[in-house]
Amino acid sequence: MSPTEVRVGVVGVGIMGTDHAERLASRIAGARLVAVADPDRVRATALADRLGTEVLADPLALVASPDVDAVVLASPGFAHEEQVLACLAAGKPVLCEKPLTMDDESSLRVVRAEVEHGTRLVTVGFMRRFDPEYAEARALLGTGERGRLLLLHNVHRNRSVPNADFRSEMIVRDSLVHEVDSSRFLFDDEVVEVTVLAPAPTRHAAEGVLDPQVALFRMAGGGLVTNEVFVNSQVGYEVRFEAVAERGSLTAGLHTTALLGTSAAAGGGAWGGVVPADYRRRFARAYDLEVQAWVDGIRVGTGAVGASAWDGYAATAVSTAGMASLATGTPVAVELAERPSLYRATADPVAVP
Amino acid sequence: MSPTEVRVGVVGVGIMGTDHAERLASRIAGARLVAVADPDRVRATALADRLGTEVLADPLALVASPDVDAVVLASPGFAHEEQVLACLAAGKPVLCEKPLTMDDESSLRVVRAEVEHGTRLVTVGFMRRFDPEYAEARALLGTGERGRLLLLHNVHRNRSVPNADFRSEMIVRDSLVHEVDSSRFLFDDEVVEVTVLAPAPTRHAAEGVLDPQVALFRMAGGGLVTNEVFVNSQVGYEVRFEAVAERGSLTAGLHTTALLGTSAAAGGGAWGGVVPADYRRRFARAYDLEVQAWVDGIRVGTGAVGASAWDGYAATAVSTAGMASLATGTPVAVELAERPSLYRATADPVAVP
Amino acid sequence: MSPTEVRVGVVGVGIMGTDHAERLASRIAGARLVAVADPDRVRATALADRLGTEVLADPLALVASPDVDAVVLASPGFAHEEQVLACLAAGKPVLCEKPLTMDDESSLRVVRAEVEHGTRLVTVGFMRRFDPEYAEARALLGTGERGRLLLLHNVHRNRSVPNADFRSEMIVRDSLVHEVDSSRFLFDDEVVEVTVLAPAPTRHAAEGVLDPQVALFRMAGGGLVTNEVFVNSQVGYEVRFEAVAERGSLTAGLHTTALLGTSAAAGGGAWGGVVPADYRRRFARAYDLEVQAWVDGIRVGTGAVGASAWDGYAATAVSTAGMASLATGTPVAVELAERPSLYRATADPVAVP
Amino acid sequence: MSPTEVRVGVVGVGIMGTDHAERLASRIAGARLVAVADPDRVRATALADRLGTEVLADPLALVASPDVDAVVLASPGFAHEEQVLACLAAGKPVLCEKPLTMDDESSLRVVRAEVEHGTRLVTVGFMRRFDPEYAEARALLGTGERGRLLLLHNVHRNRSVPNADFRSEMIVRDSLVHEVDSSRFLFDDEVVEVTVLAPAPTRHAAEGVLDPQVALFRMAGGGLVTNEVFVNSQVGYEVRFEAVAERGSLTAGLHTTALLGTSAAAGGGAWGGVVPADYRRRFARAYDLEVQAWVDGIRVGTGAVGASAWDGYAATAVSTAGMASLATGTPVAVELAERPSLYRATADPVAVP
Repeated sequence: MSPTEVRVGVVGVGIMGTDHAERLASRIAGARLVAVADPDRVRATALADRLGTEVLADPLALVASPDVDAVVLASPGFAHEEQVLACLAAGKPVLCEKPLTMDDESSLRVVRAEVEHGTRLVTVGFMRRFDPEYAEARALLGTGERGRLLLLHNVHRNRSVPNADFRSEMIVRDSLVHEVDSSRFLFDDEVVEVTVLAPAPTRHAAEGVLDPQVALFRMAGGGLVTNEVFVNSQVGYEVRFEAVAERGSLTAGLHTTALLGTSAAAGGGAWGGVVPADYRRRFARAYDLEVQAWVDGIRVGTGAVGASAWDGYAATAVSTAGMASLATGTPVAVELAERPSLYRATADPVAVP
Repeated sequence: MSPTEVRVGVVGVGIMGTDHAERLASRIAGARLVAVADPDRVRATALADRLGTEVLADPLALVASPDVDAVVLASPGFAHEEQVLACLAAGKPVLCEKPLTMDDESSLRVVRAEVEHGTRLVTVGFMRRFDPEYAEARALLGTGERGRLLLLHNVHRNRSVPNADFRSEMIVRDSLVHEVDSSRFLFDDEVVEVTVLAPAPTRHAAEGVLDPQVALFRMAGGGLVTNEVFVNSQVGYEVRFEAVAERGSLTAGLHTTALLGTSAAAGGGAWGGVVPADYRRRFARAYDLEVQAWVDGIRVGTGAVGASAWDGYAATAVSTAGMASLATGTPVAVELAERPSLYRATADPVAVP
Repeated sequence: MSPTEVRVGVVGVGIMGTDHAERLASRIAGARLVAVADPDRVRATALADRLGTEVLADPLALVASPDVDAVVLASPGFAHEEQVLACLAAGKPVLCEKPLTMDDESSLRVVRAEVEHGTRLVTVGFMRRFDPEYAEARALLGTGERGRLLLLHNVHRNRSVPNADFRSEMIVRDSLVHEVDSSRFLFDDEVVEVTVLAPAPTRHAAEGVLDPQVALFRMAGGGLVTNEVFVNSQVGYEVRFEAVAERGSLTAGLHTTALLGTSAAAGGGAWGGVVPADYRRRFARAYDLEVQAWVDGIRVGTGAVGASAWDGYAATAVSTAGMASLATGTPVAVELAERPSLYRATADPVAVP
Repeated sequence: MSPTEVRVGVVGVGIMGTDHAERLASRIAGARLVAVADPDRVRATALADRLGTEVLADPLALVASPDVDAVVLASPGFAHEEQVLACLAAGKPVLCEKPLTMDDESSLRVVRAEVEHGTRLVTVGFMRRFDPEYAEARALLGTGERGRLLLLHNVHRNRSVPNADFRSEMIVRDSLVHEVDSSRFLFDDEVVEVTVLAPAPTRHAAEGVLDPQVALFRMAGGGLVTNEVFVNSQVGYEVRFEAVAERGSLTAGLHTTALLGTSAAAGGGAWGGVVPADYRRRFARAYDLEVQAWVDGIRVGTGAVGASAWDGYAATAVSTAGMASLATGTPVAVELAERPSLYRATADPVAVP
């Protein structure tokens, strides 16, 4: 018979946590959603009723519950450190949405706690590693057919962001951070220097906000990455990369949809695909594959998959340096602690689906 | 708590049945693989051991077992009628790989047995209905934005087929039949006439085999379908369509992969995507979505999804007419029995994933 | 020094003739526009004044003029026979817009007059032969790398046609005729049978007009062609083909423009190219290359290039058969006269630009 | 009658000069090739014989000849200053291949001589301005539909360069310089700062050569440009850009050929276009359109078209700064002289063909 089910609790039921709870309740083999927890008791209860699961008193009680085998953390970033450390203390696998924590030092505390624990329990939710195109690109680069990876060009566009309280740094911290992890994943290498530049901003950005931004990463092994992040493009969600190697290149995300066409209703005259409004369509499958792989890793006892606590720490450290560079426009070096032997450079590769 | 698991048995463990057994054992939420059955006892036992499930004595014993809630039939086509009728007699949902049965009359017997049973238990494995592009095209055509569907152009190519014992009719029966179902699904209408023509064949076909073939379908509502089926294209697996409506068109399958690129290793000079070698990569996700939807339908008790016994019967009837047309090159009318009220024209639409 | 200039006269200054006159006056090396003729004297004089050329009394006077070395005929089709025969009688090269003449017999009279003359003087304006994609496809098919051509799928769409006086036959005679010539050019073979079918028409066609239409051609050598012609697609001008050979395929016209993009102004959300409103953008370069090649052929004395009088006759004969088939929906055989030795199957191949 | 012919002499008959001579002898309306000059007398005579034109003793004699109305300079860069100044002194229009001259000061001397002459006679051969995609992109950006241009991403790849004597600076001077002009053309603005960075080089570059390189341009109005130049990509000639504006983007050069396809001969499995081996196929039409527009400008007396002496000077100045930046990896400011009123920012826009 198949291995027993993994009983999963979800902490935080905002958009991302609700999405994960529904996924666990309906699309993930070998998992059972057993509990949700959220300070907003009303919201949590409504979700739990809908999905037929329990509501627990508080996140730490959920982590401690003997009915919970593993935890998905979709709480706000400032709550992550305490909750992840509680999971480590309880010896329970945890899938923590990015960012791992709010700054380098707290992320490093998580890394050290996990090293002390001795085995990997923490997965950080950089879901792109499970996107078939990113995973296949890494696998193809790994075959050596195209030689060594030299350059990576990343593009990341959102139709718009809410303007209230939005600050330029949030482009680095919340959007560019995905490109940090993608670059580390595709190069299998660390970022050692980051420069963030900005052109004269679009009129669609809030007053004083630098949007778009262009960031450069230097990798430890000599690779170079250009990034465009533009969060008020007015068009839609576009995430693309071109990886340029010694003997060929790979481009992902070019065709935003597989279904193409024309429509006279749209004013006639255009032939092509649709640019989706947000990330959910683009990365829906990556999230499914990520959570399934995480559950599979727990069921078969082979340990954590995907981005590690080290990857979460490194991403935070590069973001921190990026925010410093944004303030000055000059290159800022990234100084990482020494990598414990528990971690490879960029965690385990992911099997191509 | 979530609804109880569906305990599934798989009959036939050739390529397709093994694929389904692995899917049920690892990727389908809410299902448990509990048994496999196959006349080849050695093959069945090896698979059962690997997946941790039982081997049952014979297919009908599996169907009858009180431990089996639902059945996947991946046995040879000639065995389907008896096995599907046994499932109906036992009141168990069955996902039957195409063809439903080997000829119109036996398919009609299945339809009548299901009508007598009174509710739909049979799903025929036309998995393309669950492919995101086909499903979305049907949904978009259903919105009316592009007006009425007028024409459909289908292309279906395989790199090659085994030449021993291959006959021209098998292109109609095994390949074109998918285009029959796709056409019925996208038009939501029946095929009333079929013409199968053939050019001078490729030198890569076996002696006497007419490959490629071009088939025309006339739909009851006046729509027209052109189909190319070419099973020795030497290139790879290409399945595409262009649906031409009054105010716009939709094209699916054009970009065979989302990851594009160049490679000097491939002789340099080419920019584009990869044509996959066979159907498994193209439709892997459609199979997953199909089986998940089938299991979900059983768990929530809303009944069968996907192609119905009626759809299976209609596909068989069009294939039969197509084989007759291939022999003469002239149009052959498709005469269907009256459709019982249990069935819509082309089964329920599928939600766009 | 370069060879002397070719002095060209243009007969008929409607849209096409005006276009040719402007081309000859400004973009064609080695040619000089010396005269225009048109029954609409006002229109002809206005054009002549603008381009600095002469107006001649009538078309036949222009043909006869000692100042005219070669003639472009853009007069209405019913006037072609007399004017082409006059050019032949005068021994002057003539580029005659399609159709060569209005029916098979008159086209055959032109063929016979040219055979009597003994060398080719007539070029029929099937400009697609000079479109870089069509020319390159023929050249690539000629290399044999992809084996023998088996199937050709043509698509021809116009945004709309004027509805007054439009009849279903005009789709065959004026639009499908281009596909006839393209098919003969790419197969280097004759059409021997044509079938024209029609689905239930679009609501955007005029009352009683069958639009779209699907035509099938059987080639003498066993090839098969499917054609879609849709002249009220509401979208724009789309001309595409896919040529399917034994070991690979070639697709032209897929990307309607080389410049791609997004625009929030267009409602956001679409990524792709523009579908041009009419043929002028799609085939502007083909017309330039055609006329330049025609002039070059005259200057260097190597004789006529492009589609021959035979090609014009064959296109007319297939169209005639197509109109007959449209009336019945059944296949109609094309019976050509014997091909004089002056002509190859489909005229000379065109060098890839 | 049409205006008289422009009698053109070509100086320098290497690859580029031969190409221009053939173009003038066969494809340009209103021009006559009357002379060629080259220190390599044998090569010049062979070409002149083939094209039926004269060989003149030396470049300055050609410039001075009363039989020459206008001059195309395709001599080595170091010879340009003297020859262009001679054309200015003779009052003859000159199309000078890039670079205008070898350094900022000599380029400025040309600018000042032209200002003294009082009207524009110099066109610098930045042919991309005549490429339909670049011209249309500038026109579309000019409509304002997409708002202001914010970012430009340029990619420039060559299959390989001869390794003997190749130095890193040549990537800036000979390749990046095209991106300088393209950026100035699309932004209609000057480059004020340039940074040239390099990753660890490809193994296919010569010892010590930094290839690929990434350059950043800051434009006077706040725009930002990223450039990749990679001259040993092993794949082929790829020139692309994506222009990112406030309300949409434009991408050119993505589909390297309009004809797409598959071929089993190429190992099967790939679907797409061909990457051309070199620039001739990619920009053949741009060269034709450039020379035709240059000749047309002379015939109708409306003066010089395309990139001006000022554009040539600005490109040289940015290249000089780029070479300085390559040595240090830090940003280098571009200090231009004051722009004389004879010149617009980036010369006249080009009509979309």
